[in-house]
Amino acid sequence: MDRLNEMDRLMGTLTVEEIHQAAERIRPFAHRTPVFTCKSLNERTQADIYLKAENLQKVGAFKFRGACNAVLSLLPEEAECGVATHSSGNHAQALALAARLRGIPAYIVMPRTAPQVKVAGVAGYGGQITFCEPTLEARETTLEDVVQRTGATIVHPYNDLRVIAGQGTAALELMEQVPDLDVVMTPVGGGGLLSGTAIAVSALSPRTRIIAAEPEGADDAYRSLLAGRILPSVYPQTIADGLLTSLGTLTFPIIQELVEQIVTVSEDAILSAMRFTWERTKLIIEPSAAVPLAVFWEAKVDLIGLRIGVILSGGNVSLDQLPWQIDRPTLS
Amino acid sequence: MDRLNEMDRLMGTLTVEEIHQAAERIRPFAHRTPVFTCKSLNERTQADIYLKAENLQKVGAFKFRGACNAVLSLLPEEAECGVATHSSGNHAQALALAARLRGIPAYIVMPRTAPQVKVAGVAGYGGQITFCEPTLEARETTLEDVVQRTGATIVHPYNDLRVIAGQGTAALELMEQVPDLDVVMTPVGGGGLLSGTAIAVSALSPRTRIIAAEPEGADDAYRSLLAGRILPSVYPQTIADGLLTSLGTLTFPIIQELVEQIVTVSEDAILSAMRFTWERTKLIIEPSAAVPLAVFWEAKVDLIGLRIGVILSGGNVSLDQLPWQIDRPTLS
Repeated sequence: MDRLNEMDRLMGTLTVEEIHQAAERIRPFAHRTPVFTCKSLNERTQADIYLKAENLQKVGAFKFRGACNAVLSLLPEEAECGVATHSSGNHAQALALAARLRGIPAYIVMPRTAPQVKVAGVAGYGGQITFCEPTLEARETTLEDVVQRTGATIVHPYNDLRVIAGQGTAALELMEQVPDLDVVMTPVGGGGLLSGTAIAVSALSPRTRIIAAEPEGADDAYRSLLAGRILPSVYPQTIADGLLTSLGTLTFPIIQELVEQIVTVSEDAILSAMRFTWERTKLIIEPSAAVPLAVFWEAKVDLIGLRIGVILSGGNVSLDQLPWQIDRPTLS
Repeated sequence: MDRLNEMDRLMGTLTVEEIHQAAERIRPFAHRTPVFTCKSLNERTQADIYLKAENLQKVGAFKFRGACNAVLSLLPEEAECGVATHSSGNHAQALALAARLRGIPAYIVMPRTAPQVKVAGVAGYGGQITFCEPTLEARETTLEDVVQRTGATIVHPYNDLRVIAGQGTAALELMEQVPDLDVVMTPVGGGGLLSGTAIAVSALSPRTRIIAAEPEGADDAYRSLLAGRILPSVYPQTIADGLLTSLGTLTFPIIQELVEQIVTVSEDAILSAMRFTWERTKLIIEPSAAVPLAVFWEAKVDLIGLRIGVILSGGNVSLDQLPWQIDRPTLS
């Protein structure tokens, strides 16, 4: 089987039916998050914006949906040995909590340079942490060691069909909560949220356009779509720290097939959109969640007058120093 | 009629029936705000906390309810001449918006030292601003001048039965959204929110205890209840800038009659509760809204295991510098 057929097979493997099944599976554990509207946001964007508040999801991010679906999808004999990942972000906390809810161990490999607050978060959800050197190679070999020792199942943060199906459940809910959307927007990092969203939306509302947003300083997904192949993220620089990763072999073909376009946005636009959202909606969103809203601050796409669902990916941000208080390097 | 009878008359004047009428009156304009729960907040407080999110109300604070009810209660011939107040806080913005919704002028007297953001807020809602010197005397004489000139009706921020009735509508909704509360808590400044809440709750759920919270550095309501008469707020010092005012002649007797107790809290407890709420609920609340939650950070009252409704009064806070980033003077 050549590579393209393999992709087709994998894409064919994930249908909206499996997203429905994921929704059933995670229902007892995940929040059905509310959708908010905000008059001044609508005035500012000249559109009807529906904010799907995944910042109010468990662990403060949509990541809990995918991790939870992956953990609950394991066969009992697999589950027994636990799950493992390397991550210092929201996925690590999400996987730790999902594993605890099923009563199985979660082995999390973290760089020893990970912020104390993230380490405490994972530990607080009962994750068993193994520290390693802060390189990708060290993370991967350490994870291999952990898996060898424990027999745990690796749950990748986005390049995993169970994870993608779980992330797609946010869009399922959004479409139930707000019918007849013209557009659904998400940020794109590794593409788990975007590909799950794209499958759900295109299946249930074919006329709805799917538009993703990405920081200019981490525009690998934008460039990958142009090139027709996965280009890695090289030295990404953005305050949207959830979007530093590259697309995966599972997420790329889905995005290529179903997403209308990826719009890149500047750091200034991300900051402005984030601050406006904090001030006007009183919702704490992380920089990555502001990335789709930043599209409206730059007007690169004409979305005037449309009904637009925006998935606010998360709300985990350090409150010691806010992003607009930090001196940023200028992107060249 | 002596003073006590006058008070009885005034108290008798405001019943839960008028709060119901206020709810009907403002329904087309005010948000029915959601109620949030948060597992980690419940764990931290050892209680079941139901957060009535008035930070998501129009203008970002419960104040819109009272201002809106007052404006809509005016007879047509009164309304024609507009409304007036002196305020640099949420009430000014709330009154300006309520007047705009009825299509009548709002004359707002503000000290010329008022922060630019507040001035812009009032102007943005169409309020006609008259600046004055930053003294109470100047504010009152300037307001008198404005009223003489325009014939506008003064709407006091809390010592007004229409305003109190409007503020009470938040508790009406809360009781519909969450039945069988053991306790309802609000902050107390001038007492508009507290007295409206007390009338609604005591009428509809007599077994529910009403507990208010107040900063130690602005504890005039606490001292007034002890003394049995209104003691003014003298040089109040607190980050809870919505709670600097003294009780009014209308709010005091209601509070005296219906509120179980006023608990004072330290500035450190307010900051800790506020930050915890931001981090865990992802809701932006202003310091005043954190004051009732701060009670749980000091455990002066045993509320363990109870079902407690907390009215989050507002979410208007400067995002240039967060309260925990500001050097505070030590209270002596």
